[in-house]
Amino acid sequence: MFDKITPRSEDYSKWYTQVIRQAEMADYTPVRGCMVVRPYGYALWENVKEQLDIRFKATGHQNAAFPLFIPMSFIEKEAEHVEGFKPELAIVTHGGGKKLEEPLVVRPTSETIIGYMYSQWIQSYRDLPVLINQWANVVRWELRPRLFLRTTEFFWQEGHTAHATHEEAMEETLRILDIYTDFAVNEAAIPVIPGRKSDSEKFPGALTSYTIEAMMGDKRALQAGTSHDLGQNFAKVFDIQYLDANQKQQHCWTTSWGVSTRMIGAIIMAHGDDQGLVLPPRLAPTQLVIVPIVPKNNDAAKQVVSKTVDAICETLGDIRYHVDDRYEYSPGWRFNEWELKGAPLRIEIGPRDIENEQVVFARRDIPGKEGKTFVPIANVAETATQLLDTIQADMLKRATEFRDANTSEAENYDSFKEIVENGFARAWWCGNAECEDKVKEETQATIRCIPMVQPDSDGACIVCGMQAKEITIFARAY
Amino acid sequence: MFDKITPRSEDYSKWYTQVIRQAEMADYTPVRGCMVVRPYGYALWENVKEQLDIRFKATGHQNAAFPLFIPMSFIEKEAEHVEGFKPELAIVTHGGGKKLEEPLVVRPTSETIIGYMYSQWIQSYRDLPVLINQWANVVRWELRPRLFLRTTEFFWQEGHTAHATHEEAMEETLRILDIYTDFAVNEAAIPVIPGRKSDSEKFPGALTSYTIEAMMGDKRALQAGTSHDLGQNFAKVFDIQYLDANQKQQHCWTTSWGVSTRMIGAIIMAHGDDQGLVLPPRLAPTQLVIVPIVPKNNDAAKQVVSKTVDAICETLGDIRYHVDDRYEYSPGWRFNEWELKGAPLRIEIGPRDIENEQVVFARRDIPGKEGKTFVPIANVAETATQLLDTIQADMLKRATEFRDANTSEAENYDSFKEIVENGFARAWWCGNAECEDKVKEETQATIRCIPMVQPDSDGACIVCGMQAKEITIFARAY
Repeated sequence: MFDKITPRSEDYSKWYTQVIRQAEMADYTPVRGCMVVRPYGYALWENVKEQLDIRFKATGHQNAAFPLFIPMSFIEKEAEHVEGFKPELAIVTHGGGKKLEEPLVVRPTSETIIGYMYSQWIQSYRDLPVLINQWANVVRWELRPRLFLRTTEFFWQEGHTAHATHEEAMEETLRILDIYTDFAVNEAAIPVIPGRKSDSEKFPGALTSYTIEAMMGDKRALQAGTSHDLGQNFAKVFDIQYLDANQKQQHCWTTSWGVSTRMIGAIIMAHGDDQGLVLPPRLAPTQLVIVPIVPKNNDAAKQVVSKTVDAICETLGDIRYHVDDRYEYSPGWRFNEWELKGAPLRIEIGPRDIENEQVVFARRDIPGKEGKTFVPIANVAETATQLLDTIQADMLKRATEFRDANTSEAENYDSFKEIVENGFARAWWCGNAECEDKVKEETQATIRCIPMVQPDSDGACIVCGMQAKEITIFARAY
Repeated sequence: MFDKITPRSEDYSKWYTQVIRQAEMADYTPVRGCMVVRPYGYALWENVKEQLDIRFKATGHQNAAFPLFIPMSFIEKEAEHVEGFKPELAIVTHGGGKKLEEPLVVRPTSETIIGYMYSQWIQSYRDLPVLINQWANVVRWELRPRLFLRTTEFFWQEGHTAHATHEEAMEETLRILDIYTDFAVNEAAIPVIPGRKSDSEKFPGALTSYTIEAMMGDKRALQAGTSHDLGQNFAKVFDIQYLDANQKQQHCWTTSWGVSTRMIGAIIMAHGDDQGLVLPPRLAPTQLVIVPIVPKNNDAAKQVVSKTVDAICETLGDIRYHVDDRYEYSPGWRFNEWELKGAPLRIEIGPRDIENEQVVFARRDIPGKEGKTFVPIANVAETATQLLDTIQADMLKRATEFRDANTSEAENYDSFKEIVENGFARAWWCGNAECEDKVKEETQATIRCIPMVQPDSDGACIVCGMQAKEITIFARAY
């Protein structure tokens, strides 16, 4: 641990991987493209899961577990779906010592197998809606893996719902988009832009895909969650039908939606600095680290400090705290480690502080002396609670300001090209795939989303100059 | 739903599958041997997970996620391990459109890949112990699948720890055995017998395996959790070494331990009756179901009842309750459904009850009138809390009495053969594999465990008559 971390300005990609590995969030494995999520990273993921799960359950969803394996013929049933996923499949050809009659795919996503089960379970309109989510691992073969962002195996939740009408399915799709936005903004402190995907960027098999798009520290975009209106595409292919109140057979309308361990990558890149991670208090595994400091080999001092620390801990209630009393490591070493690990708040406490009946608070998000304050010992719990809220709010504010400072309206195609070199461009787009392709080819920027919030007026397409009804976010993306 | 359930006495195996499918706990899928855990079953599994997870974390363990895939060569490194698992492997031969240079195994268990990662992470005695658990899916090819008991894919937790000394590793192995026992007895109301496995039944690659063994409703045994002292076997094969305080390289001592979705099967079979599931209150997804009853098309009555039900719900605090106000179904139909689903406690409430300021409580574990009591509306919450505790205690008591009534000390080999026809036999065993094999061949009974609690005396082996030091539990098993 504690090799020097490459500054972000020097090599952002190197910084990213070094921070993750040195903070022991995750590691590469001998299985090409697959990662280990180590305990510290997994604790963050557990907090992400918990906050999303609460929101899913509050809106009537239930969890379940569908099979890891999918018969190859299922994947092949929906034309766009197979085209989109076939190149990325991992295929089981042998089981129990024998060659299988039909190869099994390790699920890249579960619309097909879940669609089949829904066709068995749904009979009547009374069975609708079906609102199921699963927390699962999925596999998409990855040639250029990057921890959390693109790994062959990754972890996610995938919601799959079935409805009686298209209207209800659309409501569900957007309800989930709202949940994702709310989670990203209020838990992860990432000011995402919710919007619609262009046809070329939508989920293979969807009618319409929605997304939340975030700006990373290098000003590139990252898709942090998606929600799909699948229309009747999968219902028709898998024969998901119900008898309506008039005794007529109807096809269901389905949706699917997911957030993955990519969200961890988003949190790292939206907030991290050259010292390492900066975790939002609401999701941080350790919100507050307490570092007791005593002169070497002074057991009396150690006892006094330890007693005060114990007394402080008793007052901390729900705060997720950790006492780092590894006296064999210097205070500076321990500070560094917790800065690397992104604990939002640190308390330093030594014998002289105790004499003065105070401790030092250090904010992770404000480096150096500016982020430090003396706080009376009696006020530690109250101050910690307040500061954690302040840090959470300040992190969102900072990320929002950063995003806004690096987002510009493109007046013409020349300025557009400059903007997407170094940030998000807001530009009118006519809706034509040719204009989209031209942008991609000439600038490597893609349409990240067509934001839900649109101006009242029309405009002229940034590429072809034709009438355009919607403002669109273009950016280079992960 | 509500095809008639086969009585247990007629066909236990049929009863088991029908209850699971009709209660919508789980279902078979078109993927041979793989199940879907449906929302009601998954909610039970979530409660199992939560209670185990609390215990793991309270004893210093952390969660993580290791890869689904394991290189074939890793599995082959430990001789017993490969011999045990090779016949059950699912093998990925193609990924990303290409044939793989080395096939990947879908993990049947993770000692090998985790052992490799530990060899990378552990350097010094300061890094020990490593105490990691993962909640994961695993795959073992299954020719005769049964829901929850034997499925090709199943869900479990697998703990993997590394220690500096054998003593510490043994302590860990037994600490986990205690946790499993505590969970089974106090949460699942299953009076398991903790004990040691015979050599022929131990985990492939372990030095010693420990188990908790439960008696099912048909008097057969079910292994409900295992904890393994792996000695230095995996540490040597995967080179998990640490520098001790004297600067000497030492191999670690490792353990592994797991509880799986089999536990759900154990809960179903330990407590279920001919009406369906009987779930222990501490784990039941719905602890209390409230069934309001009103005359048909009487909206005024419906309003009065609904208002009282709302008022009752407000008082229920932490109780996991559900109001089944599907008036389109008759009260009897709704009672049946919740009996099938095993909700521990039911409240029936209609207009006349409200006039009398009372409700009817019905206990799931005591069928018919005997399990019913009138309770004043003002006392509902208090009574429900008390009754849930009573039901939990009574279920454990009943299961314990059942087990004890069907467990006998074998005086000689003839009586032994009779006992294992229909229950658990406690018998002296000399420790010789030949005697074990003979029993298995002649009676189909196996050694379930050598209980941790042993008499002070010695005895004569039930098979060969030679001196035997340990009493052993023999039974036919799942």
